[in-house]
Amino acid sequence: MTDLMAIVLAAGEGTRMKSAHPKVLHKVGGRPIAGHVLAAAREAGASTIAMITGPGHDAVRKAMAGIDPDVAFFEQTERKGTAHAASMARPVFAEAKGYVAVVYGDHPLLRGADFSRVTERLDAGLDAAILGFEPKDPTGYGRFITDGEKLLAIREHKDASESERAIGLCNACILAFRAEVFTALIDKVGSDNAQGEYYLTDLVELANAAGHKVGYAVAPEDNVMGVNDRAQLARAEAVFQQLRREDFMAAGVTLHDPASVYFSFDTKIAPDVEIEPNVVFGPGVEIERGAVIHAFSHIEGAHIGAGANVGPFARLRPGANLGEGAKVGNFVEVKNAGIGQGAKVSHLTYIGDADIGAGANIGAGTVTCNYDGYNKARTIIGEHAFIGSNSALVAPVEIGDGAYVASGSVITEPVPADALGIGRSRQINKPGYGKALNARFKAIKDNK
Amino acid sequence: MTDLMAIVLAAGEGTRMKSAHPKVLHKVGGRPIAGHVLAAAREAGASTIAMITGPGHDAVRKAMAGIDPDVAFFEQTERKGTAHAASMARPVFAEAKGYVAVVYGDHPLLRGADFSRVTERLDAGLDAAILGFEPKDPTGYGRFITDGEKLLAIREHKDASESERAIGLCNACILAFRAEVFTALIDKVGSDNAQGEYYLTDLVELANAAGHKVGYAVAPEDNVMGVNDRAQLARAEAVFQQLRREDFMAAGVTLHDPASVYFSFDTKIAPDVEIEPNVVFGPGVEIERGAVIHAFSHIEGAHIGAGANVGPFARLRPGANLGEGAKVGNFVEVKNAGIGQGAKVSHLTYIGDADIGAGANIGAGTVTCNYDGYNKARTIIGEHAFIGSNSALVAPVEIGDGAYVASGSVITEPVPADALGIGRSRQINKPGYGKALNARFKAIKDNK
Amino acid sequence: MTDLMAIVLAAGEGTRMKSAHPKVLHKVGGRPIAGHVLAAAREAGASTIAMITGPGHDAVRKAMAGIDPDVAFFEQTERKGTAHAASMARPVFAEAKGYVAVVYGDHPLLRGADFSRVTERLDAGLDAAILGFEPKDPTGYGRFITDGEKLLAIREHKDASESERAIGLCNACILAFRAEVFTALIDKVGSDNAQGEYYLTDLVELANAAGHKVGYAVAPEDNVMGVNDRAQLARAEAVFQQLRREDFMAAGVTLHDPASVYFSFDTKIAPDVEIEPNVVFGPGVEIERGAVIHAFSHIEGAHIGAGANVGPFARLRPGANLGEGAKVGNFVEVKNAGIGQGAKVSHLTYIGDADIGAGANIGAGTVTCNYDGYNKARTIIGEHAFIGSNSALVAPVEIGDGAYVASGSVITEPVPADALGIGRSRQINKPGYGKALNARFKAIKDNK
Repeated sequence: MTDLMAIVLAAGEGTRMKSAHPKVLHKVGGRPIAGHVLAAAREAGASTIAMITGPGHDAVRKAMAGIDPDVAFFEQTERKGTAHAASMARPVFAEAKGYVAVVYGDHPLLRGADFSRVTERLDAGLDAAILGFEPKDPTGYGRFITDGEKLLAIREHKDASESERAIGLCNACILAFRAEVFTALIDKVGSDNAQGEYYLTDLVELANAAGHKVGYAVAPEDNVMGVNDRAQLARAEAVFQQLRREDFMAAGVTLHDPASVYFSFDTKIAPDVEIEPNVVFGPGVEIERGAVIHAFSHIEGAHIGAGANVGPFARLRPGANLGEGAKVGNFVEVKNAGIGQGAKVSHLTYIGDADIGAGANIGAGTVTCNYDGYNKARTIIGEHAFIGSNSALVAPVEIGDGAYVASGSVITEPVPADALGIGRSRQINKPGYGKALNARFKAIKDNK
Repeated sequence: MTDLMAIVLAAGEGTRMKSAHPKVLHKVGGRPIAGHVLAAAREAGASTIAMITGPGHDAVRKAMAGIDPDVAFFEQTERKGTAHAASMARPVFAEAKGYVAVVYGDHPLLRGADFSRVTERLDAGLDAAILGFEPKDPTGYGRFITDGEKLLAIREHKDASESERAIGLCNACILAFRAEVFTALIDKVGSDNAQGEYYLTDLVELANAAGHKVGYAVAPEDNVMGVNDRAQLARAEAVFQQLRREDFMAAGVTLHDPASVYFSFDTKIAPDVEIEPNVVFGPGVEIERGAVIHAFSHIEGAHIGAGANVGPFARLRPGANLGEGAKVGNFVEVKNAGIGQGAKVSHLTYIGDADIGAGANIGAGTVTCNYDGYNKARTIIGEHAFIGSNSALVAPVEIGDGAYVASGSVITEPVPADALGIGRSRQINKPGYGKALNARFKAIKDNK
Repeated sequence: MTDLMAIVLAAGEGTRMKSAHPKVLHKVGGRPIAGHVLAAAREAGASTIAMITGPGHDAVRKAMAGIDPDVAFFEQTERKGTAHAASMARPVFAEAKGYVAVVYGDHPLLRGADFSRVTERLDAGLDAAILGFEPKDPTGYGRFITDGEKLLAIREHKDASESERAIGLCNACILAFRAEVFTALIDKVGSDNAQGEYYLTDLVELANAAGHKVGYAVAPEDNVMGVNDRAQLARAEAVFQQLRREDFMAAGVTLHDPASVYFSFDTKIAPDVEIEPNVVFGPGVEIERGAVIHAFSHIEGAHIGAGANVGPFARLRPGANLGEGAKVGNFVEVKNAGIGQGAKVSHLTYIGDADIGAGANIGAGTVTCNYDGYNKARTIIGEHAFIGSNSALVAPVEIGDGAYVASGSVITEPVPADALGIGRSRQINKPGYGKALNARFKAIKDNK
């Protein structure tokens, strides 16, 4: 396979986003827009990726390095157009052998296959191949001026004649070249246009003028959707989600109402998992076969074992690890904690920084007190332990196997295996005093 | 009315579901697919129902017997086609008088009226009447070869000529016969086809050949939607829900966003009930006039009295019974418990196995400790009792009428009527010790 | 600008709503239907508004006076048609100078611009101008009989000939007149029709007969949608929400799934606020720049400071005021309380009638016990105070700056600044007793 180098253009501010954050950091499916482009380039086999960022875009570099540590970053300090931006990567593309593909970084639905559409044309003998698409409404897009399979030029919308505007085939977001062709032509792009900018799309005419073979490939509109404002961001998210939903259903996952379940780019779900309406998955979730996720659950960074039962109204945060057949019920938060096989945390509980043994039962209203304002500490609960309702377990603390904590206890010391731990006051009743209190409080109210 | 016997074909594995469970057990509107078919057959007046199940499908039999205890089950041990499957019910149809309708068990949106479409044709003098429909895309369906009102044959898609494939009228899911015609012909079906199977649809040509009058009726596509994969299951659910939503709105129920409210097959709601977005109803719910169900509520097996106020973020589980004007607020779970007229359980509370008297007020963070790891016990709270916040009521326990439980108490003994029950420690303050603690914890952190 | 008087017809019962409440009190975007009409009239500059209500509609008057205290109410005691209804406002329109616009009160999507469409025609010299629209399905609507720009008559659907029914331009919901024209003609409307009612639309023919210039303007169908049943109410809500969602996205707000976020008529959101799926806004919400609202949040009457973090599963009720960078996490309810800058209330907590200082940390399971059954009292928590998990703070009570409350405490007395407050029992362990309890409870179960 011919070596592929990708240059990702991510220097734009995205002013139509009306955001303090660079456009390519806005997320689709829980991953920054430009992160999807990086992943698509790698999926297509790119061995080298250069990303062009805007001035001060440290946040972009940091986020992208977190997604793909091998990306080389180049800053475009002046806004002089897409060809100028691409030329910033010269230290890398000067060494390129094989193919160079320049791709716009604000296309979150791009996949590896879209790169392949154009590199396959290069494999077939072309010197340059540009990715096109047929938008429902071509207004604003550069039109492909073609002669059969040849691409003669890309005409910007504002420069296009009326007959050219009738062309439905438009420029999408990947321009691929034999490396030597790209290297030879990129500096020949001029800025003799209304904006005074260097346009990458001018490479098409330059390549033709130099006698190179220039063609195109066509991608589905959904794949090459660019994001310029929040409405387009929402549409890209919708398309992304729709694809994930269809994929999961095809793989044997039940979605009661697919449109109400939101996946992340990396969500993994086994067959025969059942998901009720209104479930949100953040990044890093894996669910094993036969688990049931009830409505109104919010899950990220969690592993859910086979046959486990989650929600409704469950919050699983990063580090939650549910064993086979474990149960996490309503109004329960689990963070950085293992819930053993068959253990139950059914209601109104906070489990943070804890290890709960197999078969343990955690009563309603239990709280692991894992934070002292500065440090986090762990709570260890043994197998088949029983934690009575409304108990506070002050970490670090360990409850032994088979131990029993009385309801309403504050547990600050270890409870040995098979012991009863109790930390609560004895009840006293004051006859008639309830009636007196009611009378007193009513009098206060009446006097107000 | 002529007697009707229904044979429900439910022996398929449904491999495209990619499930460990038989296809007909997957649910639509909270009821298994085949359960909808049983209900439709009964609605159409079927006096006898035979269901053909696959080998090892004990779960199907058990679930169906729970829905309709009078169904007779027959097992098809070999996969030899639909006619072979139907023939398994011989012990029953051999005795049939009147009509025999064979129906596919994987059509969850079927209604009584769809059976009537074909039995009415039999009433009108036909010997056999087959239910057809005009699918948007007929690919894959058996085509109706007709001569005016006569149905001559059903041609399987793969056996159809190009001109036959242009036919839009297709086989749906009910084949109805005079009993004697069905009994006489079912054994004449052969297996001389590509699959070597016995096809039920061959009965049409056989009946014509025997000189019987064969016709058809047409059903709307939505009614006769079969479920073969999870995407179709989701579509069937969507159609089911859409119908329920329209029915409820027509009956005077307000749905802020109909598409975000999910009903069960048996949900009952009176007029002037208002339902905010994002509410899920499991089976067994009845709501009286004027109740308000706020957003993010999950309700099953519950009765909600007139003018009651539920949610947001309320979970009502089976056996929850809310009196007139009762209130169950946010992050509250109620299970197997009565909430008396005008009583309030407003926040962060678990009420399980309890009876709460009229006008009682249950403070935030209250937990009924109803489970000892093995047994459930009841909590009784009297009328106009006041349970202070963050209390634990350890069942079995009874709080009398007008009694008052102090906030933060653990109550293990009965509190008599009008008494004050208190079970908590007295507070002590340690001056400067908070600052010292902060310093200590900060030092630990800094040393890490 | 010529003075504008609006007469809002709101006397109908709306029997198709099947409701015990008058139709115009049903809500769209959290505001009664007729409230939207009042707001639109004011937006168009109406100096005087008269509203005609039905007999016994005190609730309508009360609700509308709350929205617009300057509205003059008139009761139509007999149901004699729309002209009769409008004539009830005689004490007001008898004094009118300028324009009189009669508008149907059941059109919640009407805007100021829709009034302007017809008043601009009056400005341009017409004596009467009627608002029309071109419905997708004109069945049931009065048709505009026109001659070029002249409106000759409005023909009720049932009185229309077949050729008149082919007319697509129909009567919408605003009829505007020069005041003297309206005053002169309103009493000339007769009741010589099938229903024996006085129809407002007859004014068109009367005005033409009197030699006045009568024309029309056309509004988009969505703006002039009337609500007659719950399905139309849901559709109006959907259109309202869609507009709000588009407005917010255009202004720089991120909505992961716009269709799952529900706004009120008065929601205010700054740019760069991010809103996850499934969020419901009641009236009175304002959110500052950079705040994040996680999924499953229910927010009303709340102010959310810049960069604050809310949810998932947060409930903010009226009077919640979150400072800059404050955090309200899962299963937390905040009511009538300030959460200081950077303060955290992360889990399973009820904060009611409280003031929490900057930088304070409120542990999981904390409850402010603000209600004694009759009175509400306040809890004051100082800056950088730390409230240990599962504590109950019995109001009125004050926790000083930098104070520390031990987990599981019931706090009934003030905790001075920098002090430690503790109100819990010491733990004791009973070796082997947990095992004994398990055995005992198991035996009880086995004997059942």
